[in-house]
This record gives sequence, C-alpha cells and structure tokens, in this order.
Amino acid sequence: MTFPGTPGTLILLRHGQSTTNAEGRFTGWADVPLTPRGEKQAAQAAGLLACDGLVPDVVHTSVLRRSIRTADILLEEMDRAWIPVHRTWRLNERQYGALTGRGKREIRLGVGPEQYQAWRRSLTAAPGPLAADELARLRADQRYAALAGGGLPAVESLADMITRVAPYWADALAKQLYTGLTVLVVAHGNALRALVAVLDRLTEHEVEHLNIPTGAPLHYAFDSALHPVVRGGRYLDPAAAQAAAEAVAAEGHD
Amino acid sequence: MTFPGTPGTLILLRHGQSTTNAEGRFTGWADVPLTPRGEKQAAQAAGLLACDGLVPDVVHTSVLRRSIRTADILLEEMDRAWIPVHRTWRLNERQYGALTGRGKREIRLGVGPEQYQAWRRSLTAAPGPLAADELARLRADQRYAALAGGGLPAVESLADMITRVAPYWADALAKQLYTGLTVLVVAHGNALRALVAVLDRLTEHEVEHLNIPTGAPLHYAFDSALHPVVRGGRYLDPAAAQAAAEAVAAEGHD
Repeated sequence: MTFPGTPGTLILLRHGQSTTNAEGRFTGWADVPLTPRGEKQAAQAAGLLACDGLVPDVVHTSVLRRSIRTADILLEEMDRAWIPVHRTWRLNERQYGALTGRGKREIRLGVGPEQYQAWRRSLTAAPGPLAADELARLRADQRYAALAGGGLPAVESLADMITRVAPYWADALAKQLYTGLTVLVVAHGNALRALVAVLDRLTEHEVEHLNIPTGAPLHYAFDSALHPVVRGGRYLDPAAAQAAAEAVAAEGHD
Repeated sequence: MTFPGTPGTLILLRHGQSTTNAEGRFTGWADVPLTPRGEKQAAQAAGLLACDGLVPDVVHTSVLRRSIRTADILLEEMDRAWIPVHRTWRLNERQYGALTGRGKREIRLGVGPEQYQAWRRSLTAAPGPLAADELARLRADQRYAALAGGGLPAVESLADMITRVAPYWADALAKQLYTGLTVLVVAHGNALRALVAVLDRLTEHEVEHLNIPTGAPLHYAFDSALHPVVRGGRYLDPAAAQAAAEAVAAEGHD
C-alpha cells in the first residue's frame, strides 16, 4: 500500500472504570457497566482530546458495553456522536477463562505472586479455561455468532490476543489511517496492549511491562510507512497516565 | 434482486421528545438534545420491542443527536448496544429553512392555518430558505462534508425528502431486509413520513394526513417481494400512538 498524503492519527483509549475494575476483579468478556467515576473519566478524556485539537473522524469499539458507553460519552461531549462507528469482538478484553469474575487479591494470595503476575502480564501464560456452562452461554450470545464454528476462545494468552487484534489493525485501522483520518479506538487494557505490541513491535520483555490505565488517551502519530513517530505514543496527560499505569501494575497487591 | 429466505423486519422509531419539541418549535437540522421525557420514551420503546419479541440486528440513525441518543438508550436497555450502527444525513429531519427554531403557534398565527398546514404537511410546499449565515455554518460542519459541493439544502419539501430517503431505502435498508435481518431505524417525523411514503406507495393525500409520533415503534413485516404485509405497518402500542399522532397533528393549534 502506498501512502498518498498526510498520515492519519490514532487515539487509543481504555474504557473508564467499570464495576469490576472498582471491585478489583478480573473482568474479561463479562459485560459489566461503567461506574459513575468511569463515566466522568470518559468526559474528561473528551476534554483532553479537545485541548490537544484531536478530533476523531471515526470510532472503533469492542462489543462490550464499557467500551461502547465510554465512546458514546466521549463523542457526545465532543459533539461528534454522528461519526461512523465500528464494533468488533476483536477489540474485546482478553478472555480470562477461569479467572473471570474472581478477585485479583484473592487469586494473588491463592497462587502466589509469580503465577499471578505471569497470568496477568506474560506473553504466553494462560489460566484455566472458562467453565463449560459459561462458555455455552457465550456461544449462545448473538454478538459472537460469527465465532460459533468453534472460534470462541475459552481462554486467551496475550499472544492469542495479538493474533486476533493484528488483522483488525491491518484490515480496518491501518486502512483508515492511510486515508488521513483521525481514528479513535476505545477498547480494553489487554486489547490495547496487544495493539501497541503490534504497532511498536514490542519485545516480549516490553509487552510484559506495559500497563495501560483506564480513561487516559494515548496518541500515535505515524510516518509515511505507518510506523509510529514516537515509539509507545504519547499520553495526552502524561503525569496522570503514569500514576494510573502504576496503579494498574500494583492491582491485587494490597 | 431475488429473495432467498424469510424476509426481515423493519422497526421505525421517531426519536423521543427533544427540547424544541417540548417548546413547540420547528427543529429541522438544529441539533438539539432529548428532554428527560424523551429519554424515558426511548427506554419505554425498548420495553415495547422486547414485549413483542422484536430484537434489532442492526440500527440506522440520522446524524442528529436526538436520534443517536434515542437509539443508544433503547439498545442499551435491550442489551444490544453492540449491534452494527449506521449513521446518515439522509435520515435527518426535514431542512425546515426559515422556519428552523421558530415557534409553531407563532407561525400559525402569523401566516394563517392554511399556509401553516401546507408548510408542515403538503408534499411540495416549502417555506423560505435558511438564512445565509446559518447555511454557511451548516456547510462548515464536518458531518455534512459530503454535501459541500452544493448539495446541502437550504430548505426542503417533503417531496425533496422522499428524493433523498428513497436511495437509502434501496441501497441500505432493503438490502439488509433481504438478508432476513431485523432492522431498526431511529429518525425523525418527516424522514419517517418520507420513508413510509416510499414503502407504502402513499398517495399525495395520504402523505398529507400522515403524522408520526415521537417514541412509538412502528413495525413492518414484508412479503417476499419486500412489500409491506400490512399497509401502514403496525404500531406496537396502537392506542398510545394514535393519541400521540393526534397531538402531532394539532401542534401549533392551542
């Protein structure tokens, strides 16, 4: 693909605080709502974008309500609710399998800090699969009808996520960036880790130490080959994002 | 186009009450929000759909926030916020030109009941065009960038609206109905009048006497040639829709 003009801009945003974030639980594909604080984070993100002169032309979300609602609030605040919307399971949070709904502190105490950290952050480790009845319920959910032929994962590692996010980068996001659009992606901690791993060609070590906080817009500019101008992008509010990322890294530790 | 299986279902919904609806004003392309009552109407419409077993697979809105927000509330209530979304200016309210923002009662008293009724309901009458500065503001609005080459109307008759809605019926809605989907359209009083005129092949007299109330879902089933099984469709709550349609017909009369 040759690039005809000025490259587009990418804005990555993890959804605002959800009810399970607030409770310190693994969420995965559980479809939980935002907390009032999460709704405020979405509005605040709109302010940060506006302050930087970043105006989304198109938005992509997962099929989970916490990313959808975050995008709706942000765009309503920016008077951009009318832009084209794309929703895809490829931007869903990681399928956390048997950890879904479990308390992070409880798991950390139960299996020890090394196993806990490996499950959360390593490239290839995965906990046990989702219970059969919960998997059956997901398979019956119309939003995953396209995965009914056996493609619906019972658990995912971060490597599995990279495998499902990478085609969406190539087929949907990169195409729009090539046309010069400002593309907003509102998704989840591990979906964005996977996307950043693809964008920045992260090493395994780098992936394992990447934490993406809720509600903190991350901005990527690109050169004409669609490589990031600044590796790792740029948080619009770096100090707040740094503090929030450290809090994510420390989850389950208190 | 030949039709391979069971025809899809169409649900038409006029947005819930907007602030200018509540004030008795012509709204047109002014992008006003819902009132709290309008938000409740959207949630109530979700209840009516659920009660009838109608589950939208895809949603179409205008690019105006009152239809977007109505759809968002309805789909969130139905746990269907994840379905594909299409937004188009072709489903916008009628461009009411010089009447935009003016009080209906004031206009009716000013020009007399015949002229008032002709501007509101006749097929071909149109009031004066939008003021030049307001038209320039719309032309600078990115959501209408595709109309920048002179296609942005300064005023529209209902016949003009049929001209712009008919291609959307053929190219977008009918195609999806042919694949068996349940298609939800959340739009505006005159956009839906135009769409119903196309669907039901209304006579001029019928068009002039059609009133579509806010927040009342209207259901269309189709035969294999995509003709409505029941001309005029079926309101999910006929008594409430009848009363509300009479109230729309009487607007500006008190």
